[in-house]
Amino acid sequence: IATKLPKVGTTIFSVMSQLALQHKAVNLGQGFPDFEPPQGLRDALTRAMNEGRNQYAPMHGTAALREQIVLKTERLYGRHLDVDTDITLTSGATEAIFAAIAATVRTGEEVIVFDPAYDCYEPAIELQGARAVHIPLTVPAFAIDWQRVRDAVTPKTRMIMINTPHNPSGAVLSADDLEELAAIVRDTGIVVLADEVYEHIVYDGAQHESVLRHPELAERSIVVSSFGKTYHCTGWKVGYAVAPAALSAEFRKVHQYLTFCTFHPAQVAFAEFMASDPQHYLELPAFYQAKRDRFRALLASSRFKLLDVPGGYFQLVDYSAIRDEDDLAFSKWLVEHGGVAAIPLTPFYERAPGTRLLRLCFAKSDATMEAAAERLCRL
Amino acid sequence: IATKLPKVGTTIFSVMSQLALQHKAVNLGQGFPDFEPPQGLRDALTRAMNEGRNQYAPMHGTAALREQIVLKTERLYGRHLDVDTDITLTSGATEAIFAAIAATVRTGEEVIVFDPAYDCYEPAIELQGARAVHIPLTVPAFAIDWQRVRDAVTPKTRMIMINTPHNPSGAVLSADDLEELAAIVRDTGIVVLADEVYEHIVYDGAQHESVLRHPELAERSIVVSSFGKTYHCTGWKVGYAVAPAALSAEFRKVHQYLTFCTFHPAQVAFAEFMASDPQHYLELPAFYQAKRDRFRALLASSRFKLLDVPGGYFQLVDYSAIRDEDDLAFSKWLVEHGGVAAIPLTPFYERAPGTRLLRLCFAKSDATMEAAAERLCRL
Ligand SMILES: CSCCC(=O)C(=O)O
Ligand SMILES: CSCCC(=O)C(=O)O
Repeated sequence: IATKLPKVGTTIFSVMSQLALQHKAVNLGQGFPDFEPPQGLRDALTRAMNEGRNQYAPMHGTAALREQIVLKTERLYGRHLDVDTDITLTSGATEAIFAAIAATVRTGEEVIVFDPAYDCYEPAIELQGARAVHIPLTVPAFAIDWQRVRDAVTPKTRMIMINTPHNPSGAVLSADDLEELAAIVRDTGIVVLADEVYEHIVYDGAQHESVLRHPELAERSIVVSSFGKTYHCTGWKVGYAVAPAALSAEFRKVHQYLTFCTFHPAQVAFAEFMASDPQHYLELPAFYQAKRDRFRALLASSRFKLLDVPGGYFQLVDYSAIRDEDDLAFSKWLVEHGGVAAIPLTPFYERAPGTRLLRLCFAKSDATMEAAAERLCRL
Repeated sequence: IATKLPKVGTTIFSVMSQLALQHKAVNLGQGFPDFEPPQGLRDALTRAMNEGRNQYAPMHGTAALREQIVLKTERLYGRHLDVDTDITLTSGATEAIFAAIAATVRTGEEVIVFDPAYDCYEPAIELQGARAVHIPLTVPAFAIDWQRVRDAVTPKTRMIMINTPHNPSGAVLSADDLEELAAIVRDTGIVVLADEVYEHIVYDGAQHESVLRHPELAERSIVVSSFGKTYHCTGWKVGYAVAPAALSAEFRKVHQYLTFCTFHPAQVAFAEFMASDPQHYLELPAFYQAKRDRFRALLASSRFKLLDVPGGYFQLVDYSAIRDEDDLAFSKWLVEHGGVAAIPLTPFYERAPGTRLLRLCFAKSDATMEAAAERLCRL
């Protein structure tokens, strides 16, 4: 059978995790914490299983968890959501992104994405028979050049995807960026898909500029978040999408036939945990900022050049002082000979610009960061 | 935004569960057990969470769980699977069905489905820009008329979907049926998608005729199963797809961008539980046969006519002696005035044949069955 996705190989995250195992490297590649979700959350999940919450959840998620998301969205972004129509729980943010694209983008249409772009965006677009239009972010700030966006919009543009805080760079959009975006989509049929899975992880006192803060944009956006990033349980695969009622209805038509509903005991547990500790995510910036700063201090004596990290839990490093080769070759060399797995940026580009940058995950224990830094400082 | 799925409303399962709540009806509609997964399985999941298995699972599933599936498939169906290439864990059978269709079916192609067909098949086909070609099963046996299948095959046919044991009827395919199917797909590019989520639930000493027993068919099939049906935990949303390496590779390209991986602690728990109690599912036929027979005995004095139930956990009943109206109207009347929620068959047909049949789920405790039967016998 001929492939429908000729460009797709195994995702770089799986490839690198595999190589890390094989070479007993410290794994700073695939983005996941090496510490655990709160014990209270795990205990709540066990209770849910033992209290009979093991059959299908409602298709759009449990009422209690949707209510917690309403409270959180109101508190953080000043936006009131309708608990019945605006929120859909999904099997991870990945499902939410796929469903959002499948529900709204048609054959022959175009979706604007910013490179480097998380690798699940383009295959979801291609499976609709649509085309991803890639706009490179500026380097090294990884900012959006809005003039390029204006130039790229055509009558076929159905969607613009943004990602803030940005993976892999950590760049965050400003309120001005959202104004630029609003001006572009105003009076068009363009839907905004906002991947905000790192919404709670921004540094140096900054505030996350969610699309949900911007009433005009929120009216035409699907905003995706992830419990895995927020509560240190990427393997639980619970995420959600927020959208106004009409968009949600289309989103749910796809979601109900993609996975129908998501793991029920975890939904019960998140709702209970959020109700008992509603501000837990407010501790994340300080928690991860300490890790970021520690990791940067550990690498200060290395030959890597460290880029700024305004958000997320990844550090981009410039390795050009160490070896003069492309990032695919260097990351392979690094995992085999340097004992550290990292993520090259090339897989996230349509046309890689040849930067000498790698992504390192610092959502790690002190011991892991120290072991990695020791190896990285030797190079 | 114009809908991509004009035919899709809210799934009948959600509609009926909602009405059941609203009218305090006994819910025999949506198919889920009202008893619990084994305590040992729940305890294993808790242990997995407390032993640090909370981050991403491998994209295609944990090695330990894939190994258990290899053992089971060898033991039950005499087929040896490659643990690395042939098995992919998914977020429920629904995701597996969607991924199988999205990976293999293209715009303009045709997929043969048998009506009544589970309601997630057609939207998945339509989202590929393909067309579902509906062939009605015979009534009341719900058997396949293979001459109609031969007549329906065209050069555009990319897939034939089968479902055995069949939902909603409980009909099972025979070894002869598989031979007929093999003769039709031989020397074509047609892929078989076999929904076998009730594989362990067949009655009266019969053996489940899995596509995996048929070496020629297995070479061109994607076979889908569900842990939710087998271990009484439909809300855990873990299923899997088995396919030969080349088909699996295409399947995984979609899966990796649909959900990436599925709930990790449950995978650990299923692997541990299957290793410690490898024959647990062999108890299912006797367990559910006792429920089936009890439910039928309870309804013997009612005015419903009971159809045969060779497999699955649904009882079809003919209500024509009670009211002369279509099944949508009758199921609405029944939940409002009879106090029992059931599933009408019309939503699973392209052109409903006007049978006077409803589906009742008997994966229920004695108390639930008795409460429902008491109400049903009053009509
Ligand atoms: C789905 S595996 C990749 C995890 C991740 O978000 C990342 O590493 O960027
Ligand atoms: C996904 S909800 C429907 C459950 C089911 O398989 C059925 O009732 O047939």
